[in-house]
Amino acid sequence: MDALKPYLEKNKQRFLDELFELLRIPSVSADEKYAADVKKAAEFVKVELLRAGADKAELCQTKGFPIVYGEKILDPKLPTVLVYGHYDVQPADPLELWNSPPFEPVVKDGNIYARGACDDKGQMYMHVKAFEMMMKNDALPCNVKFIIEGEEEVGSVNLEAFAIENAAKLKSDVVLISDTSMIANDVPSITTGLRGLTYLEVEVTGANRDLHSGVYGGAVANPINILCDMISSLHDKDRKVNIPGFYDDVQEVSKQERDQMAQAPFSLDEYKKHLDIDEVIGEKGYSTLERVSIRPTLDVNGIWGGYIGQGAKTVLPSKAFAKISMRLVPNQSSEKIMKLFEAHFKKIAPAGVKVKVMPHHGGEAAVTPTDSIAYKAAARAMETTFGKTPIPLRTGGSIPIVTMFEKVLGIKSVLFGFGLDSDAIHSPNEKYGLFNYYKGIETLPYFYQYFTEMSK
Amino acid sequence: MDALKPYLEKNKQRFLDELFELLRIPSVSADEKYAADVKKAAEFVKVELLRAGADKAELCQTKGFPIVYGEKILDPKLPTVLVYGHYDVQPADPLELWNSPPFEPVVKDGNIYARGACDDKGQMYMHVKAFEMMMKNDALPCNVKFIIEGEEEVGSVNLEAFAIENAAKLKSDVVLISDTSMIANDVPSITTGLRGLTYLEVEVTGANRDLHSGVYGGAVANPINILCDMISSLHDKDRKVNIPGFYDDVQEVSKQERDQMAQAPFSLDEYKKHLDIDEVIGEKGYSTLERVSIRPTLDVNGIWGGYIGQGAKTVLPSKAFAKISMRLVPNQSSEKIMKLFEAHFKKIAPAGVKVKVMPHHGGEAAVTPTDSIAYKAAARAMETTFGKTPIPLRTGGSIPIVTMFEKVLGIKSVLFGFGLDSDAIHSPNEKYGLFNYYKGIETLPYFYQYFTEMSK
Repeated sequence: MDALKPYLEKNKQRFLDELFELLRIPSVSADEKYAADVKKAAEFVKVELLRAGADKAELCQTKGFPIVYGEKILDPKLPTVLVYGHYDVQPADPLELWNSPPFEPVVKDGNIYARGACDDKGQMYMHVKAFEMMMKNDALPCNVKFIIEGEEEVGSVNLEAFAIENAAKLKSDVVLISDTSMIANDVPSITTGLRGLTYLEVEVTGANRDLHSGVYGGAVANPINILCDMISSLHDKDRKVNIPGFYDDVQEVSKQERDQMAQAPFSLDEYKKHLDIDEVIGEKGYSTLERVSIRPTLDVNGIWGGYIGQGAKTVLPSKAFAKISMRLVPNQSSEKIMKLFEAHFKKIAPAGVKVKVMPHHGGEAAVTPTDSIAYKAAARAMETTFGKTPIPLRTGGSIPIVTMFEKVLGIKSVLFGFGLDSDAIHSPNEKYGLFNYYKGIETLPYFYQYFTEMSK
Repeated sequence: MDALKPYLEKNKQRFLDELFELLRIPSVSADEKYAADVKKAAEFVKVELLRAGADKAELCQTKGFPIVYGEKILDPKLPTVLVYGHYDVQPADPLELWNSPPFEPVVKDGNIYARGACDDKGQMYMHVKAFEMMMKNDALPCNVKFIIEGEEEVGSVNLEAFAIENAAKLKSDVVLISDTSMIANDVPSITTGLRGLTYLEVEVTGANRDLHSGVYGGAVANPINILCDMISSLHDKDRKVNIPGFYDDVQEVSKQERDQMAQAPFSLDEYKKHLDIDEVIGEKGYSTLERVSIRPTLDVNGIWGGYIGQGAKTVLPSKAFAKISMRLVPNQSSEKIMKLFEAHFKKIAPAGVKVKVMPHHGGEAAVTPTDSIAYKAAARAMETTFGKTPIPLRTGGSIPIVTMFEKVLGIKSVLFGFGLDSDAIHSPNEKYGLFNYYKGIETLPYFYQYFTEMSK
């Protein structure tokens, strides 16, 4: 392991240049106009795995975008780490809010700015480079497999079928994922819980065509007003989600665990200042950290209807739309919540409108163990490079594939992320710290070492 | 007058061709990318007024788009009719819902389909052609002035200043406007009341940037959810507008007038069938016709925020927006209502968000007299050409300039429209019947004749 640090120092610029090349490919999986770019990113990852030292790397076709599979098998008797990541990115809009173009990466104040810098190209590529370091220095202590997909941002729709078909090929001892964040660069943490997700779109239709609001206004249902009424009714005055049965399966967290959570370093004043808000808003009876981790939520992610151009148009539109997602906690079923939502939303639609609910995708919440070898190896790796024991932390995001891997392959995951909440993933000016990129590359080989040692 | 009918028959095709030429100009005043086209439409109207026989026609510059002024003065002692119309049109979007391109007029099933076919190019151009008929056949019985503006669809923002500056030039006995509709082609009516308008835009800001809904969802105000809450609260359960003071100045309509309104031919079943809705929605205690004429309303005309592209994005946006308009009835002040709205909307904003209210434009409601010479002349003209006495009708739209002309010039208007509510003005597939276009051209000269005779 001693040879690795000088190797990293020597290759820092190249490691960054290669990541920049990947970041320049606008692999937006949600928008079909980028389909060719998504495939280009897949090809890039495949080639880089081979160059880093994989025995084989291939594009596995799916009904959607290809899954990149790569492997280096030293000895079947050794432990095997399965690295999961994704090469697709979120859409970049609103483009006008970016300080530099989203697909022209730049370094500013120690950060890489680009769509995908953190989520997940930067974090995924750390694994490719850590693998290269170990290979070029004869330091890989175990087997490694890579499964890098191109549809994470659209719900990993073809991953489960792939995992089922290729269960034997994917057989491993742990899934290693860097697609989450730490508390701070000097407060390392490991994610031990993730929320599930139910994502859907609703359509409210009033009259069969857009109408003049002067001629019809006041007498015909305005689908925007009705949609607002319906959305508003989805929370009660305590900002609890107001859908019958929504909380039925929620696993309440013990007082002990809540007390432990309350010990995490967190300043509400700093949080509010950072976001430039005068007050936080959330479910009554829970703290901010609890609201984003152990409680389910409902948010509108997009809304549109009527005239949204410049100036004024006195239209009473025929239709209004919203994209709505719910974050779920362990024991809630995304499919059941989808059904509850659909039944409730249709029930509350007043006469005069028609309502459609279109499911997008979903995934289950997950809690990862802290007493596993893999968790302990990850914690020790961080201790080695950060000089501090990482804090186990349940967070608010969703990586549905964690539950899927456990169900289909019977393998637990370690959520070994090096990003920060302030990295603005899914937002304009997404960034990833140079510190974080290089620290990740430095830390990962220690995980392989400790995990192999502890598995003996 | 006898020579006019054969002249109309002979020139029908040319009258249509000329209107088509005007309809091909995309004179959308709300969108600055059409600025050159708006000016082109003004020039077209000026040239056509001169060709029809005006002594003079000119483009009067304003701070916005030019006002076309034209006149034919036979004798200062004769009565003078001031024709008002507008050459600008509403935006054409959503474009994908048009069956034929909005600025490529076509005739189908006896209707002209194009943006502006009815509102107001078709109706305005009837006046130019009626004037031509009278001029070419020595049948103009009085003086006529034309004031055709290019900013009606953006609130006639420069018209009042122009009217004040040019009060002497515009001096007339009646303002004649064709920018409204009739009940049906076999049920002629004349509009005697119009609603006022207050139009504004609101912006709700949560955090200072778009956030990941997994990381922040549930703890930070989502401006879309909050905007929905706020909009929803603007109506109470009886669908009355829930803004303190909103109804304070509303002139209640007498039982007698309401009884008279109830006599107008109207089938709720037909209405619902035509719009493909299973129920009407509106203020409790009022009929559909009352809701769209004698009662003030509030409608969201546009809403947007977050991710509205294809697929899914789990964003918690920084901002959400809506365009909101209120239709007002006589005695309500659009300025006062704007202030009431702004104060109320800011007051109901919860902590955690910032709210902006941006006024667009407004105008006052108007009721026009039915006992004036002008109204009687219009009614008699319709009797002559339709064979039926027109029904006086208060309608829901807004033509704020009616009140403005009365205030600034001291002249009352006659709202002599030939369109139909089903003409889909402000909507995709706007149309205007060939019957209506030609019937208007045929009817207008009788108005001049009767108005001149009755003014003696």
